[in-house]
Amino acid sequence: MIQAYAILEKVRAQKPLVHHLTNWVTIYDCAQVTRTVGALPVMAHAPEEVAQMAGIASALVLNIGTLTKEFVDAMIIAGKAANKKGIPIVLDAVGAGATAFRTEETKRLLKELKIDIIKGNAGEISTLAGVEAEVRGVESVKSGDPVKVAESLAKTAGAVVVITGKADTVSDGKKTYKINNGHEMMGKVVGTGCMAASVIASFAAVEKDYAKAAAAALSCYGIAGELAAAAKDVKGPLTFKEAFFDALYNLDENTVGSHARIE
Amino acid sequence: MIQAYAILEKVRAQKPLVHHLTNWVTIYDCAQVTRTVGALPVMAHAPEEVAQMAGIASALVLNIGTLTKEFVDAMIIAGKAANKKGIPIVLDAVGAGATAFRTEETKRLLKELKIDIIKGNAGEISTLAGVEAEVRGVESVKSGDPVKVAESLAKTAGAVVVITGKADTVSDGKKTYKINNGHEMMGKVVGTGCMAASVIASFAAVEKDYAKAAAAALSCYGIAGELAAAAKDVKGPLTFKEAFFDALYNLDENTVGSHARIE
Amino acid sequence: MIQAYAILEKVRAQKPLVHHLTNWVTIYDCAQVTRTVGALPVMAHAPEEVAQMAGIASALVLNIGTLTKEFVDAMIIAGKAANKKGIPIVLDAVGAGATAFRTEETKRLLKELKIDIIKGNAGEISTLAGVEAEVRGVESVKSGDPVKVAESLAKTAGAVVVITGKADTVSDGKKTYKINNGHEMMGKVVGTGCMAASVIASFAAVEKDYAKAAAAALSCYGIAGELAAAAKDVKGPLTFKEAFFDALYNLDENTVGSHARIE
Repeated sequence: MIQAYAILEKVRAQKPLVHHLTNWVTIYDCAQVTRTVGALPVMAHAPEEVAQMAGIASALVLNIGTLTKEFVDAMIIAGKAANKKGIPIVLDAVGAGATAFRTEETKRLLKELKIDIIKGNAGEISTLAGVEAEVRGVESVKSGDPVKVAESLAKTAGAVVVITGKADTVSDGKKTYKINNGHEMMGKVVGTGCMAASVIASFAAVEKDYAKAAAAALSCYGIAGELAAAAKDVKGPLTFKEAFFDALYNLDENTVGSHARIE
Repeated sequence: MIQAYAILEKVRAQKPLVHHLTNWVTIYDCAQVTRTVGALPVMAHAPEEVAQMAGIASALVLNIGTLTKEFVDAMIIAGKAANKKGIPIVLDAVGAGATAFRTEETKRLLKELKIDIIKGNAGEISTLAGVEAEVRGVESVKSGDPVKVAESLAKTAGAVVVITGKADTVSDGKKTYKINNGHEMMGKVVGTGCMAASVIASFAAVEKDYAKAAAAALSCYGIAGELAAAAKDVKGPLTFKEAFFDALYNLDENTVGSHARIE
Repeated sequence: MIQAYAILEKVRAQKPLVHHLTNWVTIYDCAQVTRTVGALPVMAHAPEEVAQMAGIASALVLNIGTLTKEFVDAMIIAGKAANKKGIPIVLDAVGAGATAFRTEETKRLLKELKIDIIKGNAGEISTLAGVEAEVRGVESVKSGDPVKVAESLAKTAGAVVVITGKADTVSDGKKTYKINNGHEMMGKVVGTGCMAASVIASFAAVEKDYAKAAAAALSCYGIAGELAAAAKDVKGPLTFKEAFFDALYNLDENTVGSHARIE
């Protein structure tokens, strides 16, 4: 059984620096969620500095939400420094499958770098696994079975694969977790997918078993969503978002212990 | 009479994908407001993918708030794909008139593309209509009469023209609507102008009469502002913003029916 | 003694335009905080327009949080126009010392432009002052004594130097202020550092004694933090952030007068 809270506590104690090359839509929320779980965010994308910044970090997030070719070039420089240092890289394949460019650039990242954790929705990950899929913008419309797709891509890519959805799936190709935390209101807030990658990276920075780290991160994250949805002053997506961040900040051992639903 | 709620209901049912090339200041809020009214936002600006992304979208928003020459180049690629597909393009002329560069690049967009809806404040639209105007940053300081300016530009540009302000004006050159919804607190929140364009685009994605779509969108949007301003826990711009998003999310037929003030 | 409220009142009355070239993480919050204190924000970074935009502005903020070489080039164009017009430039040296690139580009700005106010945390400013320091991402880990470092850099750079921290330090090389307002919750919200620069610029736009303007700005800003932390509905970083903005918006003469702690 995964002790999710114990990993969160390590994040809060060690305050790992999490370097992001991420999209311009949710960049603030990714930074804020990183700080909210107790880690330190830094966003930097200039090719002249990304290797040095990744070199002082404890984890690296690559998110292609608003990618350009030059931005992916900088990701590769940062990623090579991260690989050299041995810190985990989380790739959030936002919109892979929606355009040929996104799919190809994602594959370029997977080819040039050793990615430790590949994250996406069912459509995005199915696209990368070579399974029939449809992604409309950044929404999954059609995909394969999450467990099968995650296990398959985990084996071929040699990475932990995370598929987010109503339930989240995490597989390293040998063991597979299903995380039944979360709430549908999370889907009404732009950025909850991107932020999940930041939380996973914060956890992976302090826990070497990346599948365990990802499952624990998603469980804590989902629990915060459940608590927020149940808060009596939540009336819509924005009050939910606020309650969600605050719940994540205030998570304690008893709450996580009693709410975690990781199979 | 415009049935504003009926169009909102179509947005919620059809969930149109709204592709944005927009500014880095309010990009999150534009995505969030799109989702809040029930549509699906996607932000993408790489020249390699914008045509394909616009090709799967139901509307396109072009917002020049933090433009560069290269960004406008990408807008033109996206816009040509949108024109080819026949989906509506909303141009938000943020800051046109404040610098020669903004004015010229806006004119470049109007020349290269068939823009369906041109939106701005009175100073920005007056600038484009060739009427004496002053824009200070992104604020309208001096302008012509909104109704006359909107009607004049609508005729010469062959587009629906939207002028936001204390009252909003929408004209397609033949019929002109005045929308008397909204609240002055909306002016205290950065991004309410940009977000209006996203809501207009979401409505235009499901209603072919773009003047009607824009008027309905602005009415619903303004009603949410009125409801938020009247909420008892609103104490300043941030609590207002939160209440505003949640009110927009929760709009129902009775509320829209009883509050809509479209002439 | 500094009449902090009197300067805030001038900002509200004059509504100065504050042009920003800033980072993509906190750009929205910088715009919103500028408007919240009563000034008008504008964000623009295209080399073709920054000189003209700075030319109609009353203050300029340069923030290197997500710098690139080209972005710093645009800052120099804007800065030269600001210098020519004689409006204050506030440089926020985010992450200086974390990478060689940030340190060098900051020095390039200091060499090419007359910077009026240099702002950073203790590690960033110590780096620029040539004092032993360590900056981890954007966090100060090691630094010299703030008062000594501020006074020293103020003299050599011929600028007002602002060091933010538990207490804030402001020095023009002759007089040095210590501002004991603020609350630790401000450190839980990403962007409170960047936003402080926007508030300082708004105050410097209407008060020619820039050290006095910066001290007054930081005092008002910190008081809003204290009020927010004491609000009974604040439960974590996001409810705090909301209360903080609203408190800043609602600051009145009595509150500022009774809470200001500037030495």
